[in-house]
Amino acid sequence: MNETKLERQINFVLEIDKLKEVMRRSYLISGKRKENSAEHSWHVTVMAMILADHFAKEIDLLKVFKMLLIHDIIEIDAGDTYVYDAESRKDKYQREKSAAQRIFGLLPQEQNNELCKLWEEFEKRETAESRFAATMDRIMPLLHNYHTKGKSWQEHGVARDQVVELFEPIKAYSEEMWNFASKIIQDSVSKGYLAR
Amino acid sequence: MNETKLERQINFVLEIDKLKEVMRRSYLISGKRKENSAEHSWHVTVMAMILADHFAKEIDLLKVFKMLLIHDIIEIDAGDTYVYDAESRKDKYQREKSAAQRIFGLLPQEQNNELCKLWEEFEKRETAESRFAATMDRIMPLLHNYHTKGKSWQEHGVARDQVVELFEPIKAYSEEMWNFASKIIQDSVSKGYLAR
Repeated sequence: MNETKLERQINFVLEIDKLKEVMRRSYLISGKRKENSAEHSWHVTVMAMILADHFAKEIDLLKVFKMLLIHDIIEIDAGDTYVYDAESRKDKYQREKSAAQRIFGLLPQEQNNELCKLWEEFEKRETAESRFAATMDRIMPLLHNYHTKGKSWQEHGVARDQVVELFEPIKAYSEEMWNFASKIIQDSVSKGYLAR
Repeated sequence: MNETKLERQINFVLEIDKLKEVMRRSYLISGKRKENSAEHSWHVTVMAMILADHFAKEIDLLKVFKMLLIHDIIEIDAGDTYVYDAESRKDKYQREKSAAQRIFGLLPQEQNNELCKLWEEFEKRETAESRFAATMDRIMPLLHNYHTKGKSWQEHGVARDQVVELFEPIKAYSEEMWNFASKIIQDSVSKGYLAR
């Protein structure tokens, strides 16, 4: 272990290139292909930047950015667990926890701790920052589904109640975002994008 | 123009999905395909997060993140201008300026101004934040080239002097990063990844 600090950091940067090959269920808005978790992480972080003024001013935006930038890195080992796949969600936390230990463990100790903490905070949804980040992470695939006429919902036989259940916690995080989301859900049902 | 503020912001978020279809010259480290500008924007922002402690403590990291997250959005209209394509670089600024006006112009006025300013600041390389961001944006494709045995350099007939010239300003921004980069350049020449 004679690696310098910079070398360890660069090894981590190289390792996470693999997130560009982890595919999600959502399609690009053009419908041309599914998106990957790296480009999704970018998109959702920019959305947080743009919608931050709808959330409380005291939010630590730098922390929200860090959380959203790294929240999916564990998928390099654990894969993208589809939110509507109950079976696969059972051992999700354990799989992702091991992934966090290996991948963030490539970093110098202090940064390893920081990223593990950020990821745990994001998963627990107990702080204002993690709730804001989670709201963005829920709204993004809703937009992708809506603007591709429910392509991914239909491929996986997802119905209205499942989407509503997933959005349930958002009500408590942001009434405005919940209202926004529920209009889209309602409209998706009327248009036949989403099964009743 | 009866759009609400939230509607304008969401329209911008939907529009920038197109950055996922703008292809760069660099290959993924796996070599499987070229990368796109959205996933690159994510990768380079995470690199800034990880390497921030090699730069001055007074740097406004939130601003660096914002700059890196949005620096390539103009490519949706202007395309990715290859750094070694002298002809295409001639009208680069004008093409990108028009793109910034149209795309950031989808946002409410205040955010439009903020993003235009951030993009201009990134392009001018006059502040500590923009120089840090630009250093990350230069080092990233160097890593991608090195770890794919110079795949993209060779496809475009790029030689050592061109890479060194591009890195010239980095010397003044960070001696440590310049030393790191110049070792990689030297090693790339010895290994035959990069032409002399």
